[in-house]
Amino acid sequence: MNSPYNIVIYLYYRMTALDAIGPYEVFRCVPGAEVRFAAKHPGLIKTDSGLEMLNAEFGINDIDGADILLVPGGDAALQTKDQEVLQWIRRLHETTKWTTSVCVGSLILGAAGLLKGLQATTHWNTMEALQLFGAKPVNERFVQQGKIITAAGVSAGIDMALWLVALEWGEEMAQQIQLTIEYDPQPPFHTGSPDKATSTLIENARDFLIELYSPEARNS
Amino acid sequence: MNSPYNIVIYLYYRMTALDAIGPYEVFRCVPGAEVRFAAKHPGLIKTDSGLEMLNAEFGINDIDGADILLVPGGDAALQTKDQEVLQWIRRLHETTKWTTSVCVGSLILGAAGLLKGLQATTHWNTMEALQLFGAKPVNERFVQQGKIITAAGVSAGIDMALWLVALEWGEEMAQQIQLTIEYDPQPPFHTGSPDKATSTLIENARDFLIELYSPEARNS
Repeated sequence: MNSPYNIVIYLYYRMTALDAIGPYEVFRCVPGAEVRFAAKHPGLIKTDSGLEMLNAEFGINDIDGADILLVPGGDAALQTKDQEVLQWIRRLHETTKWTTSVCVGSLILGAAGLLKGLQATTHWNTMEALQLFGAKPVNERFVQQGKIITAAGVSAGIDMALWLVALEWGEEMAQQIQLTIEYDPQPPFHTGSPDKATSTLIENARDFLIELYSPEARNS
Repeated sequence: MNSPYNIVIYLYYRMTALDAIGPYEVFRCVPGAEVRFAAKHPGLIKTDSGLEMLNAEFGINDIDGADILLVPGGDAALQTKDQEVLQWIRRLHETTKWTTSVCVGSLILGAAGLLKGLQATTHWNTMEALQLFGAKPVNERFVQQGKIITAAGVSAGIDMALWLVALEWGEEMAQQIQLTIEYDPQPPFHTGSPDKATSTLIENARDFLIELYSPEARNS
């Protein structure tokens, strides 16, 4: 048997936990796949809720390759300016089979220079920011361009990961995993996208996000 | 302002990460709500993938009350026999506003004696085991009985948490959070429930689950 299929999920300060854990739960069900969490420094990660709740067993310097690289969203601003992180992402991307993002993780891929001239998506509230990095924003649940796949906000990573499993291991594997995690979503409302929400809901969600990712919140 | 609304999520060895992190991501968006992760002993938690990826900031002995208690699923067998854990769950349940579970977390609530004579749900593959604890299995995404809510497998915790937010903080808050986490699910297949899957898929998923939660896997 070859070495395990190598999936690396990047973790960082003030990231959004579900962006990473949704796809993780899909990928970890693939027989022979190995998921590794890597951060700039190994150890506990404080997420955007302020909780030290995730753990990176690896530092990025321990990881010199990945079949799949996944970059989650959250408070991405610091990441888009961290040359060490961007350099690491570029280096891994040279030999990945798939380079993927969830939510504003696509802005980090963009800052690394990977999205120039490509279609991409992100959280609905930051769609225009993709243009700063030369990408063309697309309002889809996820967008594939060559070996790069960007997913929409937070929960979209689950859909994207299942679809990627189908590409890599076949539809039957993806369907089996969907059944294993009983992913038969029955959201109680139909307000998961701005296309379906009232303007009041959209404004309230925007205000919440602005507060959540303000520099003041970062320092609290 | 009163003390924060107090949400406690129980973590344990070989649990399923998404069972906890899905509802966490919903609850953490409620202004004034505080989520705490508690395990038998504070520190890193090795989940059912073998990764030391979650962190409990609190030990159960540090936690003497909760407005919402959530018990996730995973390899629940050891938990259903751990009298210290069951006693803690019973004690918290005396004063919770809501006692909730995801996936086979309901078997732990059952072992604590909380489900006698009640309707409840769990992962589709362990539905019958609810009867061991005097509960009546119901094939629903989530089931409310008084202040107890049990959700179906893994991803069902997201739906349940949004619905509970609507009960506690109103529909507008739940809808706003659904929009914030862009929970507009678009699963690539329609195989998330055994009602929708082929018998081959069901058998393969069962085999995977048996292997995942075998005593051998526990010791690896």
